[in-house]
Amino acid sequence: MRGKTFIISGPSGVGKSTVLQALLERRKDLYFSVSATTRPCRPGETDGVHYHFLDVDTFRAWIAKNEFLEYAEYVGNFYGTPKRYVDEAMDQGRDVILDIEVQGAIQVTGQRPETVTIFIAPPSWTELERRLTERGTDSAEKIQKRLLRAKVEFQTAHTYDYFVINDTVENAVRELEAILTAEHCKPQERMAIINGQ
Amino acid sequence: MRGKTFIISGPSGVGKSTVLQALLERRKDLYFSVSATTRPCRPGETDGVHYHFLDVDTFRAWIAKNEFLEYAEYVGNFYGTPKRYVDEAMDQGRDVILDIEVQGAIQVTGQRPETVTIFIAPPSWTELERRLTERGTDSAEKIQKRLLRAKVEFQTAHTYDYFVINDTVENAVRELEAILTAEHCKPQERMAIINGQ
Repeated sequence: MRGKTFIISGPSGVGKSTVLQALLERRKDLYFSVSATTRPCRPGETDGVHYHFLDVDTFRAWIAKNEFLEYAEYVGNFYGTPKRYVDEAMDQGRDVILDIEVQGAIQVTGQRPETVTIFIAPPSWTELERRLTERGTDSAEKIQKRLLRAKVEFQTAHTYDYFVINDTVENAVRELEAILTAEHCKPQERMAIINGQ
Repeated sequence: MRGKTFIISGPSGVGKSTVLQALLERRKDLYFSVSATTRPCRPGETDGVHYHFLDVDTFRAWIAKNEFLEYAEYVGNFYGTPKRYVDEAMDQGRDVILDIEVQGAIQVTGQRPETVTIFIAPPSWTELERRLTERGTDSAEKIQKRLLRAKVEFQTAHTYDYFVINDTVENAVRELEAILTAEHCKPQERMAIINGQ
């Protein structure tokens, strides 16, 4: 059976990276999509692992050939999700995880409405503020900006298929795994199996 | 948070009772809906446990007052799912399991479209035939009738939200639990929590 694609989005500070790391630890069969970018490779980074590093002309050529599920420009560099690796993994029967923002999610579901979208949310806004403060990496002003951005993003989040509340990493991973399992119980896929197709 | 109602249907011989028993064993918080019936109480049966035993007048009065989620007449007796116990359990935050047939499921979702429907299916038709034969309770003719009925039912089963294939009881229960968990991750319920409502 072909794999499915799951988009996972969430505001800055919600703990999405930790949750994803724990999920991928438990589910080695998942393919975590590696983005393409035109920004230079930094020391310690490996092409094809951290990013697919492309020059600007190649990136533009891929855009022209509709080879991205979504892409964006950010501070002068391009970032995007190449279709080819996602499709390869799905053809092998692997589920694919895309860690992308709300804007990217809308681009992907526009091209592929069957994509399952999951929003990682904080238990409350005060808890998100607490986590951003505890990180100690941002000024009070920056934290307020991040909070405001999270609330704006949240206004569009009702379009997501699922909400996972990251109260504890264990709970969040349990819910993500349940969603992956449940999505493979949808009628179309299952009727094909039962009818021996 | 209020509980949700899950309908579980499946053809004769698929092993639905065994799967449900295993699910209820693992999830003591679930409320397994007890049907009402006008058929007489048999030795060893307890009112309110095996069935809610009603006389015909009471059953008719409940129909008139729209107190059933679904009901049917079968070999001269009425059978139905009373709303009151389902609603009490949901108000207590418990999820409710209804073990009913396709016809009953259509009645329930007509009244309450938010009800989640799950169809327990055999891995294949030959496997269902094998299971019906192995039970040793039916004649060859009866088995063929059951198989035909299962295939007819299956023609309407694409309207179900989920399909669980009962290859092993363990797998089937794991998928049922995943569906229950995933259904509580839907946006409407979760956004209310996050916004502190």
